[in-house]
Amino acid sequence: MSITNELEKAFHPRSIAVAGASDNPSSPGNLFTQHLMDYGYRGEIYPINPNQTVIFGLRAYASLREVLGPVDYVICCLPASKVLALLEECPEKGVRAVHLFTGRFSETGVNEAAELEQNMLQRARELGIRLIGPNCMGLYYPKERISFAYDLPMDSGPVGMLSQSGGVAGESVRFASLRGIRYSKVVSYGNALDIDEADLLRYFTQDSETKVIASYIEGTRDGKKLFSALREASRLKPVVVLKAGRGIAGVRSASSHTSALAGSSETWEIAIKQAGAIQATNFEELEDLLTGLCFLPPVLGRRVGVVGGGGGVSVLSADGWGEAGFDVIPLPEDIQATIREKVPEMWWNWIGNPVDMSLMPESAWLSGLTGDILHAMVASPDFDLVIGNVSIGGPFGEEWTSGMIKEHADDIMEAAKNGTKPVAVVLDTAALRIGDFEEWRWRLLAEQRSRFVAAHIPVFSSISEAANTISKLVNYYQNRDMSS
Amino acid sequence: MSITNELEKAFHPRSIAVAGASDNPSSPGNLFTQHLMDYGYRGEIYPINPNQTVIFGLRAYASLREVLGPVDYVICCLPASKVLALLEECPEKGVRAVHLFTGRFSETGVNEAAELEQNMLQRARELGIRLIGPNCMGLYYPKERISFAYDLPMDSGPVGMLSQSGGVAGESVRFASLRGIRYSKVVSYGNALDIDEADLLRYFTQDSETKVIASYIEGTRDGKKLFSALREASRLKPVVVLKAGRGIAGVRSASSHTSALAGSSETWEIAIKQAGAIQATNFEELEDLLTGLCFLPPVLGRRVGVVGGGGGVSVLSADGWGEAGFDVIPLPEDIQATIREKVPEMWWNWIGNPVDMSLMPESAWLSGLTGDILHAMVASPDFDLVIGNVSIGGPFGEEWTSGMIKEHADDIMEAAKNGTKPVAVVLDTAALRIGDFEEWRWRLLAEQRSRFVAAHIPVFSSISEAANTISKLVNYYQNRDMSS
Repeated sequence: MSITNELEKAFHPRSIAVAGASDNPSSPGNLFTQHLMDYGYRGEIYPINPNQTVIFGLRAYASLREVLGPVDYVICCLPASKVLALLEECPEKGVRAVHLFTGRFSETGVNEAAELEQNMLQRARELGIRLIGPNCMGLYYPKERISFAYDLPMDSGPVGMLSQSGGVAGESVRFASLRGIRYSKVVSYGNALDIDEADLLRYFTQDSETKVIASYIEGTRDGKKLFSALREASRLKPVVVLKAGRGIAGVRSASSHTSALAGSSETWEIAIKQAGAIQATNFEELEDLLTGLCFLPPVLGRRVGVVGGGGGVSVLSADGWGEAGFDVIPLPEDIQATIREKVPEMWWNWIGNPVDMSLMPESAWLSGLTGDILHAMVASPDFDLVIGNVSIGGPFGEEWTSGMIKEHADDIMEAAKNGTKPVAVVLDTAALRIGDFEEWRWRLLAEQRSRFVAAHIPVFSSISEAANTISKLVNYYQNRDMSS
Repeated sequence: MSITNELEKAFHPRSIAVAGASDNPSSPGNLFTQHLMDYGYRGEIYPINPNQTVIFGLRAYASLREVLGPVDYVICCLPASKVLALLEECPEKGVRAVHLFTGRFSETGVNEAAELEQNMLQRARELGIRLIGPNCMGLYYPKERISFAYDLPMDSGPVGMLSQSGGVAGESVRFASLRGIRYSKVVSYGNALDIDEADLLRYFTQDSETKVIASYIEGTRDGKKLFSALREASRLKPVVVLKAGRGIAGVRSASSHTSALAGSSETWEIAIKQAGAIQATNFEELEDLLTGLCFLPPVLGRRVGVVGGGGGVSVLSADGWGEAGFDVIPLPEDIQATIREKVPEMWWNWIGNPVDMSLMPESAWLSGLTGDILHAMVASPDFDLVIGNVSIGGPFGEEWTSGMIKEHADDIMEAAKNGTKPVAVVLDTAALRIGDFEEWRWRLLAEQRSRFVAAHIPVFSSISEAANTISKLVNYYQNRDMSS
């Protein structure tokens, strides 16, 4: 059976045993059992603990062997010293895959622990058992109601993720959910002792539930295998790689985290590029790229139109988009004609791109001119993408400003409706303190953010964030179209 | 009288006339009058409007000439065509400075408008009147209860700002206020027809109320004068320069905004550096730099200690700080000894820098080990700065996580108390939608942010934001100490 088929089977278990389950609420075995219950996992759950008979109202078993029915999948929360004995019991119950939450193996840098890890691998191979981990959070698969944390969404989406860090995996899901993104499956795979990043990439490449692949990788033991899997994956789906463990300290840190062989950061950069994948340099960029990949149609060129904000924001936008390699073209003739027609009394050729809204007289606002310009940009073959700046400046008070901002948001959503041209928003809701939530300004911005997220229009928190993200997307799409 | 003295006098007016004041709430003259009233400006306010007799309960005058007492300062909201006539009336009333909100001069690109601007300058010089603007928001000076917007703080702080954009000026004050920063004065100076960026820099250099100078500059007409003022200012106070109008589109955009001669962006970069100032490349960086300058003691070296977060965050921290030029040194012997002493049962030499909190056993948590490590780092001559990562990972639920996060925040604040070593926090509260405010996770993070802000500990929203900001500060402090 191919590794992809093995994983597909492992991710649809009819029953799950939690080795080391417990009613002690601060033990991992307790938590993993609880998550399965809370999420409503539909198969049988078998808590394994020699000292307890009932856990969460479920019958607990003294050992895996004593479970009555077959066991498809094991979550192992036992101490490292007890894993080998557990593996011996697996074949009898038909277990094909074991997720080892258990850590303190090679990542500790202690020889005995590293040897134990190797013995574990060897024995698992002899017994025909696949290992996920050790030292990892394992599987989050909302459709099967399996979760490694208590607070991840119950619903599914297009992003499949492999992550050497369970913490980064969880945070990725949480932060992305604020942007309207959901995940098909996430596999936290820790030390990659058996199933590795290349296996998981191949799995997600085949997985019909996954449209976009996200990855957090600290190292590899088989660069050739990884490169080949990455290239295959990138041919079919966008793959974002957050490669961690880059400098001296990062390599050292990755080694004590997942015993990863981090490798040269230049080699990785070249390999990711040659494979046709997209490199994220930090966590925030990973989230931004996923947002763009999930919600923007392919961005195929660099001619950008920017609408909204006052004079300063317009100049900063021109700089930010320009420096990210975009062409902030002058406002085309036909759009100037639209302005001239609507507000003949103003110096219409004063309006440029970015469109400085504060130059316009009130009559222009009232006649819906900014919406018209947005529409014209979206319809125009001169623009490859259109950006709406949403910011609250100006000397007017709450009522006027709220009305203006909402109308501008309406216009952007209306212009984006067609869905063929990429439209994104720059809107900074700011990092707030708890009391700030009550101020209308920040609430209003958060409300507009909610609307854009609900409408699946990507929102970025700064010009540079938007420009750098979309620049990477343009490179990706252009490169993909050239090689296909 | 030197320009600095002239400005000092202009910023402490005994009376202010608003030319073009009106009871029409969408007119700028109405707004400027209202702001003076709302903020409790203590001098006389004279609304000038030939068609109204009472505005906001104040007697309105048909012309400046008709005002009974002397007028120190004029806010002019008249149309461009009426400014020259207003200037003629100024000497009679003793007016020394006029803030021209009035726009549509050279920035429109229209010849007649540019000529009118030049005539205005010439006449003002002949009459001995200084002009702020035109095409600008003018003065925000909380101590004198003068504001160009309805929603800026009433209290003062150490940041003085000059800004060619009124929008950027206002947003800078608003966003910085969320980080606990207040401003001494802000001058939005638009087209810089008379009083220019160099004059204002000199003013803020002398101003005892200003400890840190922020600037948003789109261009200059006298690079030599600016460079000299910038160098003088930087000798005495940190100066942050956000130079906008850098690329082709930015230059074009700056020209239609404030008719700025934007100049070569390389020349600016070199000049800012040689003058000993700090360049911000975008708005967010400006705010970050101000936060570091206001709340961190001088950061004199690059050896960083990082505490908090799980394995993935630790690796990403090592990468982020390393790539920004910091030295994420291995954990020194004496701090390892602290760990060994407190938790002899754990593989104490497994703990590195960044300190991965998730490696520690519960006993270490309970014994307050992370606080001890933070304290030891702050006290250690091996570290130039200490960073607390505050993030919510882990499999435990609300109660446990809240307790852990609060304790970690306590530890960081306790360690920072001494105030001699730079301590900053990386905490991402995320850009939230309106409903997200109700979720405990995001509320908890916002609460911790509030506490850090109140304690004057800088909070950055990402590793790269913190690392890039503090890297610029190290360059600044090292460069300053070398040249002094």
